[in-house]
Amino acid sequence: MTLSPTGRRVGQNQVMTLFDDAIALTPDGENAVTAHTHPAWGNMVGPFGGITAATALAAVQAHPDAIGEPAALTVNFAGPLTEGPWRLRVRPVRTNRSNQHWLILGEQDGQTVLTGTALLALPHRGWEAQDAVMPVVDAPEAYPVAEIERTSEWLNRYRMRFVSGGLPGPTPTGDAESICWLSQTELRPWDHAAIAAAADASFPRIFLHTGMRAATGTVSMTTYFHDDAEVLAGTPEQLLLQAAASRFSEGMFDQHARLFAPDGRLVATSHQTVYYKVREP
Amino acid sequence: MTLSPTGRRVGQNQVMTLFDDAIALTPDGENAVTAHTHPAWGNMVGPFGGITAATALAAVQAHPDAIGEPAALTVNFAGPLTEGPWRLRVRPVRTNRSNQHWLILGEQDGQTVLTGTALLALPHRGWEAQDAVMPVVDAPEAYPVAEIERTSEWLNRYRMRFVSGGLPGPTPTGDAESICWLSQTELRPWDHAAIAAAADASFPRIFLHTGMRAATGTVSMTTYFHDDAEVLAGTPEQLLLQAAASRFSEGMFDQHARLFAPDGRLVATSHQTVYYKVREP
Repeated sequence: MTLSPTGRRVGQNQVMTLFDDAIALTPDGENAVTAHTHPAWGNMVGPFGGITAATALAAVQAHPDAIGEPAALTVNFAGPLTEGPWRLRVRPVRTNRSNQHWLILGEQDGQTVLTGTALLALPHRGWEAQDAVMPVVDAPEAYPVAEIERTSEWLNRYRMRFVSGGLPGPTPTGDAESICWLSQTELRPWDHAAIAAAADASFPRIFLHTGMRAATGTVSMTTYFHDDAEVLAGTPEQLLLQAAASRFSEGMFDQHARLFAPDGRLVATSHQTVYYKVREP
Repeated sequence: MTLSPTGRRVGQNQVMTLFDDAIALTPDGENAVTAHTHPAWGNMVGPFGGITAATALAAVQAHPDAIGEPAALTVNFAGPLTEGPWRLRVRPVRTNRSNQHWLILGEQDGQTVLTGTALLALPHRGWEAQDAVMPVVDAPEAYPVAEIERTSEWLNRYRMRFVSGGLPGPTPTGDAESICWLSQTELRPWDHAAIAAAADASFPRIFLHTGMRAATGTVSMTTYFHDDAEVLAGTPEQLLLQAAASRFSEGMFDQHARLFAPDGRLVATSHQTVYYKVREP
């Protein structure tokens, strides 16, 4: 048996995508499921962090006791995930009137590979407002789809149209901001799991800051989801992804990302801290 | 016995502060300590979230197996913490060559009140850079210490000198950014626990956006620490705290904060998601 991963309503004519395949889960005793890395989502070393985060979130959403929809997700990449099956233990530790707190633990070959927490909350419509302002850009069609040297398989799962700050050239910019239109290569309605993955689709900011590829790896990532599933499902396929960094120090840098719907609505806010190793100049 | 909470070197003439008192811990079996809420850090309901976050971090740092210094901390406030003792279970789940991953679970009266994860990392000097730009402001003395209606005791633990976006007046600004010089009322060198607390010292952004007090509560908070303990200890007492919000929706808003040293160095980056309830206009 394969669990319906994210509670998403699948229409009659809708086919499973490589994303659905990658986050598919098999029950594995109480409070546990087995996931399996998917070659379509491979990165330089192990899988793309975004798909791992999405899988962790899917495990929470697939749990029979899950109440509400994702509001916040933190995942820590504790160690390398190698190709093959891995186990996710997810446990609701507190259910309140309008939200629910979850602990997440990922294991492979007897080692902890992931820790995390998730917050589910009941959808709530009411007073709302937005302070974040979407950058002024043209429609997606105004920018060519980036021809990226696809050193990692997961890059084939997205189309990126850079407005600014694309892949680094030989000259470092000294400014690690980038803006791009992002869409999934296989059309699939947005849901929280897909947003959790897309929030990790920015290149490591140190590539842009230094103009060089460096050894990097996301260590911890937190995403806040600002919309419920119904709003997400009706969101256009093209999202504007704005990414930047704050400080590179102590062998780590923080990277933040915002995903906007084309009408300017902020869909998600995400932050991560990333390990880096550069050759001293 | 009371554990030395944060591994901080205490000089001969240095006295314990109300901060040290509040994060003091007593061993309580393997992988567990008992903490106690402190009336000096009370908020409207329960303690100031920042002191709770600091206590959780102190519990990790006081653990005999702790290696390295705080790089990232996520705490989820799962339920109200009431006055009295509470128990923190902290467990290292993975120790790598240069970092260590921790799970945190807080309990009171048989209920989970807090979940979290912490990342410790070995201090590392090397290539560094900063993209975040400190706002251009005058020295702290140029701004008066805010006379805040001290409805919550924790407000007495800090001095705030607002450059912009102080406590809301009768007219909503529609822009929830604020900038203030922040210092601890009792002089005490900065360390990671104190930064974890200070990162939560901004008023809920919805007060500024709407011009009204609303019912709010931080639900989840993540802080990235950009400096090691030695650098923090030498950082001047006055930090520039810049806080803003992105979106208020689904009964939650995200709030981000940056803490800068006076020389412009970004000391910490923090994000939280906050529950709110407003009367519909």
